[in-house]
Amino acid sequence: MTDLRKMGERAAASKPVLQGMTAREKNDALLFAASALRAHSGEILKANSEDMDAAAGNGMSSGMLDRLKLTDERIDAMAQGLEQIAALDDCVGEVMEEFTRPNGLRIRKVRVPLGVVGIIYEARPNVTADAFGLCFKTGNAVILKGGSDAVRSNAAIVKVLRDALVEKGVCGDALQLFEDTDRSVTVEFMKLKDFVDVLIPRGSAGLIRSVVENSTIPVIETGTGNCHIYVDRDADLDMAVRIVYNAKTQRIGVCNACESLVVHSAVSGTFLPMLKKALDEKNVELRGDERVRRILPDSKEASEDDYAAEYLDYILSLKTVDSPEEAIAHINRYNTKHSDCIVTENEQTAEMFLNQVDAACVYWNASTRFTDGFEFGFGAEIGISTQKLHARGPMGLKELTSYKYEIRGSGQVRG
Amino acid sequence: MTDLRKMGERAAASKPVLQGMTAREKNDALLFAASALRAHSGEILKANSEDMDAAAGNGMSSGMLDRLKLTDERIDAMAQGLEQIAALDDCVGEVMEEFTRPNGLRIRKVRVPLGVVGIIYEARPNVTADAFGLCFKTGNAVILKGGSDAVRSNAAIVKVLRDALVEKGVCGDALQLFEDTDRSVTVEFMKLKDFVDVLIPRGSAGLIRSVVENSTIPVIETGTGNCHIYVDRDADLDMAVRIVYNAKTQRIGVCNACESLVVHSAVSGTFLPMLKKALDEKNVELRGDERVRRILPDSKEASEDDYAAEYLDYILSLKTVDSPEEAIAHINRYNTKHSDCIVTENEQTAEMFLNQVDAACVYWNASTRFTDGFEFGFGAEIGISTQKLHARGPMGLKELTSYKYEIRGSGQVRG
Repeated sequence: MTDLRKMGERAAASKPVLQGMTAREKNDALLFAASALRAHSGEILKANSEDMDAAAGNGMSSGMLDRLKLTDERIDAMAQGLEQIAALDDCVGEVMEEFTRPNGLRIRKVRVPLGVVGIIYEARPNVTADAFGLCFKTGNAVILKGGSDAVRSNAAIVKVLRDALVEKGVCGDALQLFEDTDRSVTVEFMKLKDFVDVLIPRGSAGLIRSVVENSTIPVIETGTGNCHIYVDRDADLDMAVRIVYNAKTQRIGVCNACESLVVHSAVSGTFLPMLKKALDEKNVELRGDERVRRILPDSKEASEDDYAAEYLDYILSLKTVDSPEEAIAHINRYNTKHSDCIVTENEQTAEMFLNQVDAACVYWNASTRFTDGFEFGFGAEIGISTQKLHARGPMGLKELTSYKYEIRGSGQVRG
Repeated sequence: MTDLRKMGERAAASKPVLQGMTAREKNDALLFAASALRAHSGEILKANSEDMDAAAGNGMSSGMLDRLKLTDERIDAMAQGLEQIAALDDCVGEVMEEFTRPNGLRIRKVRVPLGVVGIIYEARPNVTADAFGLCFKTGNAVILKGGSDAVRSNAAIVKVLRDALVEKGVCGDALQLFEDTDRSVTVEFMKLKDFVDVLIPRGSAGLIRSVVENSTIPVIETGTGNCHIYVDRDADLDMAVRIVYNAKTQRIGVCNACESLVVHSAVSGTFLPMLKKALDEKNVELRGDERVRRILPDSKEASEDDYAAEYLDYILSLKTVDSPEEAIAHINRYNTKHSDCIVTENEQTAEMFLNQVDAACVYWNASTRFTDGFEFGFGAEIGISTQKLHARGPMGLKELTSYKYEIRGSGQVRG
């Protein structure tokens, strides 16, 4: 507890240093940190192999082991990530608005760092360098809390990055790793409101729920995606097959993958057999309502839970509707406000769907897989927000900033 | 608990209706609601007099009774408030950004309502009409939870407003009052995350703390203001007296009032006696450090708690510093990130202060009392945010909105 407060105090103390840095100084430090990662890859790989041995001994699955594993190539990719962040424009200090009041007060709204960002994440050690880079670029101090499985790897990466900061004359406390893996201490961390301005959880739905329930620090909720594609009666059915196939199977373990298909009854008889043929290539399991199962007798029965599920697997739920309005109501009931899509050639129906579906990203005739900071052209991504406060959808550098009002007067007082 | 979920479901069900309304339809309903308040003032005053009798019986202070009391003039002011909101521009639907990606996807960032806003507030019944007006104008459904002292007044106001909505063909569930005053039910309300998109507490520091600690709904923290004025060695001392006098005494019970004075040692010997002379008119109690008390022997000793206090009273803490840097460090340690001011004729010192003080509003040569949605020209105010997520400083209509991305494609899939 005392140690936690000390971490918070040190992070807070580094804020003025970070906020006083020019864009060039920050970019120099990022490039230097990138080269330090490459130069010290041996130490990082050694720590990672200890994590790998321990995880294998604990019976970690091969998929998870692959996420944990670092190689020279993966360390090089982390370094490249920092170099890419250095190349992005610096948005801190930008004058967002400026106006003069009738009493002569000149009010300027200026973009500033959030301050201290806390990030709680799981498994993949590359998040360590990535989250540091994004926060540092935006003038934020960061306290990282990684998963227990990656604790040696994360500590090695953080040591290299901190040493690089210090060598560049920057306060090392701009980056701190919280290594205690005790759950009750983690919960205390979520209440460090005096020192941490925002907490971003990255990981499983369970991790995110725990942070939302326990944190007194403002949270940006990220990640859970029960994404829908609605195939309208006026859809180009070949296009619909391509889009659903891509959104369901191109990468299954991601939050912008399609989990549920909604299909208009006027085209389901033609469309569903076309879709099944494509999805059979990837052995996708289909779970549908009664009308779906009349057309595709092999498919399983969908329950309420199926319509609410984020499978992250080769499974798709299917629902038949008789109108776009019914499709919208179904989606607004079950979606996680992440990404939903309509496939139709009817512009009026499409505009209604775009307007009425309540999600961060609503698509007309494109795969939900595009919900991504890089695909949106932000050049970086710290996560995908599924809440409505502060940021919605892909979050890049700007979403790691706040603003302040600077008010310049000449002695004005209020009457 | 079940009743709470039903309220949430009803609020959520009203969202599509609200979001489908044009600016004109919303403004018509607001104007009609304003005239309904005037037409039904008798019922509202009757309910209010019952609240007043009960509160007087419970020994409520005369200051609090005055806040609770409604009159024909105060009801007319509530109605005028709704009329003013109707006259403001509608920001919902605004295209905030629009860009086309190399793959042809057209991405449009559109301003949308937050959805369902929960507001927990105390004492003053005028907040009921005001909060409704701001939320309704921005297309949000609202669930209000007022203080137990004003429960009859609030219920009467809400009945008039709901009836007006229904008469205008709008879903009455766009406005709901949560009347249960049991604390544990209030805590359950703060966990109604499936239905409520944001929770805004308005009231005492204790109320706000309780919401931050208990809510799983994203919260916008408002209101606590330990505002500082720093009188620099290069200050125009007459201007400094006017600004401190205004910020301290013009209205004491508000969050943008000055609570602490920081003074440079080079001018404290001249300035403090000038200031004391002015503040003595209002019998302001001064609590200073040792150097202050050497100059003003009548003043009391300031403790650590004094420097952290939001007095909301005729009390001022005073701290002597030897440099602007020391002033900035003191302010960043004790402020509540609300509003702080420097009085100086030195532009370089002023710019350093504006840049380095971490607060929603930082002033150069003007009273902190200007931190206010109306004074900023927003035309309305739902509160003053002291957090960094989503909104900072005065919150008007735009701060009651979120955004969504509409993405229009022609069959794009991710490679």
